[in-house]
Amino acid sequence: MAALLMAVAAFGQQALGPGTGIVSPEINPDNTVTFRILAPKAIQVQLSGDFLPTRPVEVEMGGQKLVYNAPGQVDMQEGRDGMWTYTSVPLEGELYSYTITVDGQKVMDPSNIYQNRDVATWTNIFVMSARQGDKGWYYQVHDVPHGSVSHVWYDSPTLGMQRRLTVYTPAGYERSKDKYPVFYLLHGSGGDEDAWCDLGRTAQILDNLIAEGKAKPMIVVMPNGVYFNQAAPGAAVNMFQPTMTNSRSQSTIEVENSFPDIMRFVENTYRVAKGYANTAVAGLSMGGRQSGMLSLHYPKTFGYVGLFSGVAVPDDSNADAFKAVFAAKPKLYWIGCGKEDGVMANSLKLKEYCDKMGFPVTLYESDGGHIWRNWRVYLTLFAQQLFK
Amino acid sequence: MAALLMAVAAFGQQALGPGTGIVSPEINPDNTVTFRILAPKAIQVQLSGDFLPTRPVEVEMGGQKLVYNAPGQVDMQEGRDGMWTYTSVPLEGELYSYTITVDGQKVMDPSNIYQNRDVATWTNIFVMSARQGDKGWYYQVHDVPHGSVSHVWYDSPTLGMQRRLTVYTPAGYERSKDKYPVFYLLHGSGGDEDAWCDLGRTAQILDNLIAEGKAKPMIVVMPNGVYFNQAAPGAAVNMFQPTMTNSRSQSTIEVENSFPDIMRFVENTYRVAKGYANTAVAGLSMGGRQSGMLSLHYPKTFGYVGLFSGVAVPDDSNADAFKAVFAAKPKLYWIGCGKEDGVMANSLKLKEYCDKMGFPVTLYESDGGHIWRNWRVYLTLFAQQLFK
Repeated sequence: MAALLMAVAAFGQQALGPGTGIVSPEINPDNTVTFRILAPKAIQVQLSGDFLPTRPVEVEMGGQKLVYNAPGQVDMQEGRDGMWTYTSVPLEGELYSYTITVDGQKVMDPSNIYQNRDVATWTNIFVMSARQGDKGWYYQVHDVPHGSVSHVWYDSPTLGMQRRLTVYTPAGYERSKDKYPVFYLLHGSGGDEDAWCDLGRTAQILDNLIAEGKAKPMIVVMPNGVYFNQAAPGAAVNMFQPTMTNSRSQSTIEVENSFPDIMRFVENTYRVAKGYANTAVAGLSMGGRQSGMLSLHYPKTFGYVGLFSGVAVPDDSNADAFKAVFAAKPKLYWIGCGKEDGVMANSLKLKEYCDKMGFPVTLYESDGGHIWRNWRVYLTLFAQQLFK
Repeated sequence: MAALLMAVAAFGQQALGPGTGIVSPEINPDNTVTFRILAPKAIQVQLSGDFLPTRPVEVEMGGQKLVYNAPGQVDMQEGRDGMWTYTSVPLEGELYSYTITVDGQKVMDPSNIYQNRDVATWTNIFVMSARQGDKGWYYQVHDVPHGSVSHVWYDSPTLGMQRRLTVYTPAGYERSKDKYPVFYLLHGSGGDEDAWCDLGRTAQILDNLIAEGKAKPMIVVMPNGVYFNQAAPGAAVNMFQPTMTNSRSQSTIEVENSFPDIMRFVENTYRVAKGYANTAVAGLSMGGRQSGMLSLHYPKTFGYVGLFSGVAVPDDSNADAFKAVFAAKPKLYWIGCGKEDGVMANSLKLKEYCDKMGFPVTLYESDGGHIWRNWRVYLTLFAQQLFK
């Protein structure tokens, strides 16, 4: 009774709902998924999700008309009492995202608190683990030793500001006296130092791979790659609305020049096994290009380089730099890209160039496009090859 | 051009919007705030916000009809092209929350990425700083030295599981050799180890108070107080939907018995200045009651005790325990409660009892009810009195 009254007091004055009482999404025994929303006044309710066949949508951007593959959309069916439902086909293990549209207005599923923000877009999410060892299994939390995730600030004299970064330290780090190798992991355009943990499930992937003995215990450093931002939304001085189309954020020169500030902080603050064989860099999209450029700038620093859906393209101006990169004999130079990704042409061009020059690189071609679903896979594959 | 194409590639296949192009909320020079949403098909669009006068709403809960004060709601006005707007009166500095309802369906403001989750309820938020030094100013990020926020796991042999907690370490901790006092800060029913940082702006409040010399540098430990949960949603094994009405979570016995597991971990992992004069505990609602019960159980452990909108009520069964608490001469025993809070009666009862017994306690009575707006204020006031 006291508990009830306290709950009511909190409920009342905070407008906290007791939940909708509706289960959505519901993962059924046959791995289909049922979505439900109560919308008695609605005329049309639609579900968009990255598990539905994509559909072409025309947009205007920078004065050009472009067609892109948007997530599929289906009509939900109205049942008794204004409850709308949709049941998917059986799904594989994966982290899925979806949104609901009621009469043209996007709503979040009120029965599902799990949400991710990607740049300026929120979606509901759910993790499906169809069987042990599938992709979804790696993105789930299991009862294995867990690493720590810390949001810390460092000083960047080069950029003239304090900046925030995210650090994963593996389970046992605090009690150990060992030194650990470091993997610098860079986000894409419009992202921030939270993106790889929130959208990429970095902590879960590393926890699970390390527990299985498939990856070495390592420190993963996730800096903010938009050089003029201090920090992610909420941790930054202004309540800015992030955008993906700010071309200045594509610039890598400031990132290359200021990257030693990050490494100096990390090596002074954590128990780091330094040197070429203990240092990796990888990134997605803009961060992939940055990883490539960082290796060109500092050819003897990174023994492992990963380019996920974004590369530094070889041309006459950087041919000598490419030679220097491979003269240092990197342990791994790994390119991952989706067959439907607009960046595939450049990935193939880089692979062809390296083959012609006799530089050993790996190109991993996946299905799909420029999506987090691929970047989580690339992380899972790349992390297993590090520091061995 | 390359930047544009990369942005389109990402935009396309992830369904990332380029933003709505609408500014909402817009803080105007006279401290009024304008909200905007495009909803051309809508018949009625309403704004609910904690800056609007509350309204009584009747709900049924556990078979009883109860009336509570819900956040105020106003109609937004439709303008040209289906743009609905509302402009508030001038607002004071504060962290505000709001939601929009379109034809009876709650939507998040699509132009504002800033959101908070409280138990199972998402709202949009904005921080308004009307002038330097007001409440909103303390909740904003300023260009001062920033502490770190870490999510770490510890072993609880008492509860038989690994559990997650959040640790704030003040700016300079990593480079210092000093030992720091520890403040254990507990959340309310249905909350988790993320609540005090996400909703309570703990890192910002501490950063700002420490930078001004108003609070001592300290470690703040924010454990998970729902003893049968390992971690917050997203970091836990199951994708559970949190609820506030689970009466088991009101139990404090397991929390009292297992609290030494937390203190042992913290004292073995961080550079901690141990002992009564260097150890504080406070919490809100359920966490306030837990703080009171922890001090009754361990009367020589916490030199500072804070009960925010939740207390342990004195009765015949715990009279000796209360005597033991005050025999140890706590540096501070501080009760904070809102005049409209259902817990005020118990707060007054405790104050009256302590006065009668000659126990020195402080009762801080604020306006308003059982709301985060008050708990942020209580934290700001309480933190300034610690370890001095």
